[in-house]
Amino acid sequence: MDPLLREIRHTPLLWMLVFVPIVLVAARMVPAAHTLLFVLAVLAIVPLAALLSHATEAVSEKTGDAVGGLLNATLGNLTELIIAVTALRAGEYMLVKASIAGAIVTNSLFMLGASFLLGGLRYHVQEYNRAGGRMHAALLLMATIALLAPAAVSELDLAREAMAQNFSAALAILLIAAYGLSLLFSLKTHKELFASEDHGQTEEAKWPIKLAVGTLLVVTVLVALVSEIFVESVQHAAKTLGMSPAFVGFIIVALVGAAAEMAVAFSAARKNRLDMNVSIALGSASQIALFVAPVLVLLSYVVGPEPMDLQFWPGAVTMVMISTVTATFVTNSGRSAWFIGALLLFIYAIFAMTLYMVPPGSQGPA
Amino acid sequence: MDPLLREIRHTPLLWMLVFVPIVLVAARMVPAAHTLLFVLAVLAIVPLAALLSHATEAVSEKTGDAVGGLLNATLGNLTELIIAVTALRAGEYMLVKASIAGAIVTNSLFMLGASFLLGGLRYHVQEYNRAGGRMHAALLLMATIALLAPAAVSELDLAREAMAQNFSAALAILLIAAYGLSLLFSLKTHKELFASEDHGQTEEAKWPIKLAVGTLLVVTVLVALVSEIFVESVQHAAKTLGMSPAFVGFIIVALVGAAAEMAVAFSAARKNRLDMNVSIALGSASQIALFVAPVLVLLSYVVGPEPMDLQFWPGAVTMVMISTVTATFVTNSGRSAWFIGALLLFIYAIFAMTLYMVPPGSQGPA
Amino acid sequence: MDPLLREIRHTPLLWMLVFVPIVLVAARMVPAAHTLLFVLAVLAIVPLAALLSHATEAVSEKTGDAVGGLLNATLGNLTELIIAVTALRAGEYMLVKASIAGAIVTNSLFMLGASFLLGGLRYHVQEYNRAGGRMHAALLLMATIALLAPAAVSELDLAREAMAQNFSAALAILLIAAYGLSLLFSLKTHKELFASEDHGQTEEAKWPIKLAVGTLLVVTVLVALVSEIFVESVQHAAKTLGMSPAFVGFIIVALVGAAAEMAVAFSAARKNRLDMNVSIALGSASQIALFVAPVLVLLSYVVGPEPMDLQFWPGAVTMVMISTVTATFVTNSGRSAWFIGALLLFIYAIFAMTLYMVPPGSQGPA
Repeated sequence: MDPLLREIRHTPLLWMLVFVPIVLVAARMVPAAHTLLFVLAVLAIVPLAALLSHATEAVSEKTGDAVGGLLNATLGNLTELIIAVTALRAGEYMLVKASIAGAIVTNSLFMLGASFLLGGLRYHVQEYNRAGGRMHAALLLMATIALLAPAAVSELDLAREAMAQNFSAALAILLIAAYGLSLLFSLKTHKELFASEDHGQTEEAKWPIKLAVGTLLVVTVLVALVSEIFVESVQHAAKTLGMSPAFVGFIIVALVGAAAEMAVAFSAARKNRLDMNVSIALGSASQIALFVAPVLVLLSYVVGPEPMDLQFWPGAVTMVMISTVTATFVTNSGRSAWFIGALLLFIYAIFAMTLYMVPPGSQGPA
Repeated sequence: MDPLLREIRHTPLLWMLVFVPIVLVAARMVPAAHTLLFVLAVLAIVPLAALLSHATEAVSEKTGDAVGGLLNATLGNLTELIIAVTALRAGEYMLVKASIAGAIVTNSLFMLGASFLLGGLRYHVQEYNRAGGRMHAALLLMATIALLAPAAVSELDLAREAMAQNFSAALAILLIAAYGLSLLFSLKTHKELFASEDHGQTEEAKWPIKLAVGTLLVVTVLVALVSEIFVESVQHAAKTLGMSPAFVGFIIVALVGAAAEMAVAFSAARKNRLDMNVSIALGSASQIALFVAPVLVLLSYVVGPEPMDLQFWPGAVTMVMISTVTATFVTNSGRSAWFIGALLLFIYAIFAMTLYMVPPGSQGPA
Repeated sequence: MDPLLREIRHTPLLWMLVFVPIVLVAARMVPAAHTLLFVLAVLAIVPLAALLSHATEAVSEKTGDAVGGLLNATLGNLTELIIAVTALRAGEYMLVKASIAGAIVTNSLFMLGASFLLGGLRYHVQEYNRAGGRMHAALLLMATIALLAPAAVSELDLAREAMAQNFSAALAILLIAAYGLSLLFSLKTHKELFASEDHGQTEEAKWPIKLAVGTLLVVTVLVALVSEIFVESVQHAAKTLGMSPAFVGFIIVALVGAAAEMAVAFSAARKNRLDMNVSIALGSASQIALFVAPVLVLLSYVVGPEPMDLQFWPGAVTMVMISTVTATFVTNSGRSAWFIGALLLFIYAIFAMTLYMVPPGSQGPA
């Protein structure tokens, strides 16, 4: 336990772990105080997500190169996945879909933009591995095309057909197959193209394997418990705070889910290691499209009240496409300056504003 | 006749020419066996298309650089053109439009993707002439924008207006003018940019000019005869096999029409000559947009029951734009690896799946 | 006054200033001859715009680097702004929006295309500062995304809500903030990236500051007077000449507003200074999106009959996005040849044709 406690002592972010027992107790005591529970759940999830990603890396480090890479890639978005599964079980499909689309947008606009801005405020022009950036961008672009193509191509009454379910299941299997090949490509046959991807915080003290696995399991359970409170309270809190459901899924859930990765990314940006930022932001977005989204579709057959399809509403399709095309274009040159980051954040702000203003219910599928 | 017979003996693909008399006889004997006739017609068209492209090249080789280049460029998609004219005469405008859009998608996703995958399985990373690839990609991107702009801009009731006919005719003339300028550019004023475009199979035995022209004429007539059987049977066969009309035009017709070019492209990919692949795939797609499509519109005034316009249905517009933007992006770097090809094929598979699942009649213009 | 008169004597374009008094008198004498007034107003605005841009540069030259750059950037599209404000005061919001969208399309397709074509007819291949071109293109791409994102994302009934007004005002303030940052970036923190942007005609005789400011003020008033005649007559003339309102705003107003800049750009192209062309064309288009458009929204609260929003009709969104993506792609390589210019002009012609054919009233918001 020693390395874990030392870790917590040295990382102010982890001090927020104190909110985990608070929110669990509060949910028992005042189950109707939705806005309070929502705020407490957010404050509890952020440090848990940080710990989770830390434990994942500690485990993957011990298990050797290939298996470790696989683990890291598969569990990299574990927080997002747990929150989405909780929403899935509650039958909140609109929230699940909005959080999938929102996670891609948040990674490719907000995380990338804030990294470029933070890095650019310290360094005049930042250069990074162009080939790696391009490869990530190509993967992300095609991943989102694969995810969104059916929605973009047929906005028709496909959604109402029973056939849409089979179609979404078939698409999900195809996406997971593509994800498998992408791992084969990036971890095995062409791993030199993705070379600079070593994550920064592993320079610190190593964890013994038992501690790492134990932490991984315990924290997963804690995230699941807090997620349940979060999903239950978020909709009520949104109404109180005047937010549309689309805004909640797209912005709030996506930001909370990605908070831990962002902490890593922003510190890398200020150390002029933009390779890592591009790899975290675009890699995470690709993973949502090729792995998290189809896994949720397949899981919906088991844990959901009915199967979920992959039909996104037109506004979500447009926002995701704009985000990934912009991220692709921006990372194409291998150079960055503060204004590029500022522009990405402006586009993100405009999306957020649009979603906030949209009257609840006027958008999104039934 | 000697070189022709030797050619046939050495090319297993051409042994399939035996299906030409079989399908012609079968159409007389069992005119109602649509599915059988459809399969036989496909098997007969593929070797004919190979022979046709071979004869075209033999003729163009004899006629000197400028005229030869022109001939090669104009007759390069002769098979697609003959099939489409046959469908035009039968008044199957939906099939014609779907096959135009499908040919662009098939060339830029399937042919390019399969080439990259086949080449990538043998070579770790393949490099090719980046400037040439970019020029082809730029031409293709603008050609498809020119073709689709009206459909993308006004999905309104333009289609119902009598004015739409004049508009499509004017657009067709504009596209053919652009095509003429593109030939002037690529064959005359800036031919050095397209330098590596010499097609591979011309290294083999030369044909005498008489044999080449004779073969060209005879095979054109044969393709026309078999196309008639194909167009007649394909719709019936589709119904029997549970395919939507959009799927037939987009996927089946496009694959059959491009089969011969693909054989050339795939063998080039395995010889590490990706320049040729990019040039065949993107060049052929551009030609469909700038030459075949407008020629069909103008021909519809002569051979069709009524003039055909160039309004594509929204799903087709989206698929064509996604395909050409993806091909442009992918060829921008001048490098390739197997996974890039695999991703292009995944997107193609998703498009095919979407078209297959769409209930017949729910998409496409009346 | 001497340098001004010498300037006029040596610049044939400025001889057209004679139309200024003619149109002002004609408007008094034959207020109902709309087509005549329309033609005269166009003939008068073109030389006034040239003089205006000249005076702006003379003033900005005297005021030192930072203030001068700011002035030049802010007043660069003064003619477009004055025409639009006149239309705003007349409540012609459809015309204002069409001219905003049209100005972006005209700059990025027509001005760039004609420059590439004119330059390419004289030089085989033209190279230009790739980094500068990319920076301009990135700025333009993001500027149009920021401007159009709300329209692209929610084509729903947002337009009908009272909320749409607040939303557009908030968006306008965000866009102007982005514009301010872009000036900080391009004029101050990273001005070396935009280095080659010195405009050509300043090599000639310098104007004294008094003359420059005086000309600026007088010409601004004259442009405003003629614009009033132009806006009043253009709609009537359009009906007489069979043009749709969308065509008038998109093509006629945009071309008239940009005529002066085009004269500068085309002469630069023939001197093989494509850097300047790219910078004028893309810089001007960005400025319309980030500065002119939001200023018009905010001004509509003061001078218009009611607040104007930023909801563009879907066809305009598509055309603007296609134009900027194409311009981005084309300027990405830093090389040009005549055919690239010809293709840009073809796409512009197709857009113009589409707008011309669209029956008046079938497109555009109420």
